[in-house]
Amino acid sequence: MLKALLFDVFGTCVDWRTSVAGEAAALGLPGEAVADAWRARYQPQLETVRSGEREWVVLDILHREALDDVLAELGRDLAPEQRDELTLAWHRLDPWPDAVAGLTRLRERYVLATLSNGNVALLVDMAKRAGLPWDAILGAEVARHYKPQPEAYLTTAALLGLAPDECLMVAAHNGDLAAASAQGFRTAFVPRPAEHGSSQSRDLKAERDWDVIAADFLDLAGKLGC
Amino acid sequence: MLKALLFDVFGTCVDWRTSVAGEAAALGLPGEAVADAWRARYQPQLETVRSGEREWVVLDILHREALDDVLAELGRDLAPEQRDELTLAWHRLDPWPDAVAGLTRLRERYVLATLSNGNVALLVDMAKRAGLPWDAILGAEVARHYKPQPEAYLTTAALLGLAPDECLMVAAHNGDLAAASAQGFRTAFVPRPAEHGSSQSRDLKAERDWDVIAADFLDLAGKLGC
Repeated sequence: MLKALLFDVFGTCVDWRTSVAGEAAALGLPGEAVADAWRARYQPQLETVRSGEREWVVLDILHREALDDVLAELGRDLAPEQRDELTLAWHRLDPWPDAVAGLTRLRERYVLATLSNGNVALLVDMAKRAGLPWDAILGAEVARHYKPQPEAYLTTAALLGLAPDECLMVAAHNGDLAAASAQGFRTAFVPRPAEHGSSQSRDLKAERDWDVIAADFLDLAGKLGC
Repeated sequence: MLKALLFDVFGTCVDWRTSVAGEAAALGLPGEAVADAWRARYQPQLETVRSGEREWVVLDILHREALDDVLAELGRDLAPEQRDELTLAWHRLDPWPDAVAGLTRLRERYVLATLSNGNVALLVDMAKRAGLPWDAILGAEVARHYKPQPEAYLTTAALLGLAPDECLMVAAHNGDLAAASAQGFRTAFVPRPAEHGSSQSRDLKAERDWDVIAADFLDLAGKLGC
């Protein structure tokens, strides 16, 4: 029986690109270019941890390091304290318009937890600001493994006292669902076709026959009987 | 600056004795005797894990094992499935009357997290049923160390991205506060003089000059400016 819904956060629940671009633009930087260049460093950075090349480090640190690189690439400068503060833009991401209302409905029937590569402090700050009604904030940091490594998924289910097939992984990314499915989790795809802006080319649609395919979190709530 | 309040749960937020006694009595058992005998096994059980005699195991398992012992001592029998179900009484503990209202006020200004020896699944179930508005469910299981071991406190603060002195440990138990204080946490004592019933003899009052001493969670909210 399905008991918990586990959510990818960046891109699935929140619109990181618009939020980060807005904070960067407020500092006189080219907002979307900063957001895209910053996020482009994300998977390569995670891979240094996943591969064992680098010891466990939280996403806040990786974000801060990547920002230095992004600014150098763009030929822009910011004072160190401005860089620290801009890094916290990732704690202040706005949810997609349907997210809070959909989660609020889903929470009546299911346990809702994050299964994100974001660190706990980042996700707590984001949830408090945006009103994301998580029952538990779990994922990479408590597992000390970044998705799509199996430990991130399995540790999250274990902390909830659940078997993988009692959990539904919800993501806007086919790769995340493939990794969850390989560990026995159920899967729900919710497309976020504007995550990467108007020229987005990937994850525009479900690439496999996932257990649930929903237009947004309100549609997901309806499809799950909430 | 104070940023997060970390709560002991059993006894401090919820009235475990009345709740467990009620579920035991509903099965025809002597309710208060079961609750007291069950809880009496708690610290000795935890000590087997703290000492390294036994590998990490979650509280749900320890509760289930202790119940067999309690029933044998009382000369009572229950079917295995009844034992499993009664063990989940610890997931269904009622909060003290001031707890939800006090936490709701405190949450406006501070991050609220559990710092409990309860496992995540237990605390999630309890929070959903009782309406305890945690921002994060942390503590022993994510640290894989039971209080009062330092790792339980330090891991919880670290997951929140905070230094110990940015965190206030809230407990009805002087020993819990002493352990937190030794790691640099601020401390708040909230007495729960009926936790162990009418004959309670310990933790009736603050035994040290803790940073805050409050009559209940509403008083705590007032004293913290919420």
